[in-house]
Amino acid sequence: MTEYTNHGVILRRRTNGLPTAEMFEFSETAVPEPADGDVLVHNLYVSADPGMKGWVSTAKNYASVEVGETMRSSGVGEVVVSRNPSIQEGEYVFGMTGWQEYGIASPGHPGFRTVDPTSAPLSAALGALGHTGLTAYFGLLEVGQPREGETVLVSTAAGAVGSAAGQIAKVKGCRTVGIAGGSEKVRLCREAFGYDAAIDYKSVGDLSMALEEACPDGIDVYFDNVGGATLDAVMPLLNQGGRVAICGTASTASWDPPPSGVRLERYLLVKRLRLQGFILFDFEERFPEALADLFRWHGEGRLAYREDITDGLEHAPRVLAGLYEGTNTGRAVIRVRPDVNR
Amino acid sequence: MTEYTNHGVILRRRTNGLPTAEMFEFSETAVPEPADGDVLVHNLYVSADPGMKGWVSTAKNYASVEVGETMRSSGVGEVVVSRNPSIQEGEYVFGMTGWQEYGIASPGHPGFRTVDPTSAPLSAALGALGHTGLTAYFGLLEVGQPREGETVLVSTAAGAVGSAAGQIAKVKGCRTVGIAGGSEKVRLCREAFGYDAAIDYKSVGDLSMALEEACPDGIDVYFDNVGGATLDAVMPLLNQGGRVAICGTASTASWDPPPSGVRLERYLLVKRLRLQGFILFDFEERFPEALADLFRWHGEGRLAYREDITDGLEHAPRVLAGLYEGTNTGRAVIRVRPDVNR
Repeated sequence: MTEYTNHGVILRRRTNGLPTAEMFEFSETAVPEPADGDVLVHNLYVSADPGMKGWVSTAKNYASVEVGETMRSSGVGEVVVSRNPSIQEGEYVFGMTGWQEYGIASPGHPGFRTVDPTSAPLSAALGALGHTGLTAYFGLLEVGQPREGETVLVSTAAGAVGSAAGQIAKVKGCRTVGIAGGSEKVRLCREAFGYDAAIDYKSVGDLSMALEEACPDGIDVYFDNVGGATLDAVMPLLNQGGRVAICGTASTASWDPPPSGVRLERYLLVKRLRLQGFILFDFEERFPEALADLFRWHGEGRLAYREDITDGLEHAPRVLAGLYEGTNTGRAVIRVRPDVNR
Repeated sequence: MTEYTNHGVILRRRTNGLPTAEMFEFSETAVPEPADGDVLVHNLYVSADPGMKGWVSTAKNYASVEVGETMRSSGVGEVVVSRNPSIQEGEYVFGMTGWQEYGIASPGHPGFRTVDPTSAPLSAALGALGHTGLTAYFGLLEVGQPREGETVLVSTAAGAVGSAAGQIAKVKGCRTVGIAGGSEKVRLCREAFGYDAAIDYKSVGDLSMALEEACPDGIDVYFDNVGGATLDAVMPLLNQGGRVAICGTASTASWDPPPSGVRLERYLLVKRLRLQGFILFDFEERFPEALADLFRWHGEGRLAYREDITDGLEHAPRVLAGLYEGTNTGRAVIRVRPDVNR
């Protein structure tokens, strides 16, 4: 494979706080050699995800990236070398190809799939029609288990996962309430993502009071992307038998040591609540049916999504750091090959 | 019904702390009149339960007792007046008959059942062969969902609910570890209730370290009767996919305002944990099958129980207050009619 040169973003140090661009380095790297059964992918788009904070954290995580390694990420691109008889060179695939021009994808690994470049923009495979949408789908439907007519509250409601969760709840006949930061995101909640009510947590004085007003029948399901003080404010308003799907803990910068907060166990007992964490790959065998639902809802105009596309792999660390400043309003995607617009 | 006089224990004030005997008053009261469909029961035994703290608390609860009312409790006794064609006078029944000599039981109400006085001592209907055993049964099996070979941890492990939970986990092929306070309770855990290991939280210096030693394969299910700092110590040791059944919060004296503790949401996310509160009556339609299991295990010698029987209804408030001092080692039962020994 001497015909390729590779560039990638390497993790240079870990943090117990928020990731910064300086923790990474963009450099020329070796083109990885696909093992038997794997494919070499020329990345078109890679992603920056809030959950990457955990991967580069000094705290224990289910998926740490080691210092000196290329940053792990999902990517979508074109197969340029196939060592797998079921995948042809020239096909488009989704895999954990990393922040690099050329990455390996393993058809046996969680989430790998081929992507039809004609059914939707390829970049959507990184978002609403990929893991982002799937995370919302399983977190909401399997952990949250909303029933028609119930009130579903979503935090980071205009974000990539949150906006999908809110729209799926709407498909299921729920009343949806979003929490977002800033008037622009609140506008998006109402106008782009169909929330019945949206709260700007940055401008309301008292979040508890705002939640009470926005949820006159209480809260049955809370799709929680942030944890922290917002979760504390939600707990007293959950109805009996309420469910909280713990999808992220973005509001807390460091978990080492774990910070203090309101004790929750009394709420759980008295109201028979369920708090449950999940990760997407526990549901992997059901991805095909879920993607079919997501594509159908997207085709019917019931699942809108937004993307912030940045050109140039070298900007990926800055895009990641920006996620925690709350300024992005769409799924953060890095276009590795600005020459390709598909 | 002028042939009966009644005495009962009345709630005189509420608390946001632990119940004391002085909050109650023992006095002559009216014999209640059974409505159509109800029965009047001459109580033989009534119970004192840790959960009563919530009923007399100033904080919101699912089952508050009002000031001036007779204290609610379960009881077992003889039907002396029946206004229900399916229940005969002279039958023994279990119901929420209260801390009084004569109380009403409603055959349509949660938990009501007739009790066979020949199959086990009548008082067991208030404990291991009644709601106590049922609470352990559904909390452990439905919320905790232990699988064979897993490690099940139980707090207040020698207590009425805890000892039943530990023994049921053993029936299901689990390794059982108990947390109890004091050497006598730890001895009971090992010798009477079959725990594989037991920890005296009062004498170990470092509970986390003691838990790690007692649970070398981590913890899969935590049957939590106490909440608080013990829950905090358990969280880091839960295995991926671990379940916590929140059955009680006895370690925290007051929830008004809710005290602070370690934030739990990160553990839930990273390890895909489930924390769930429950109350027994959510499972009421399955009581008959569960009671059949409990009676069978008791008959097979696999479900031992202990009782602390106190004679005299006037002592019920003192028995209740004593529960929170941690001195009792068995199900707290008050014998209303010391002349009856059945």
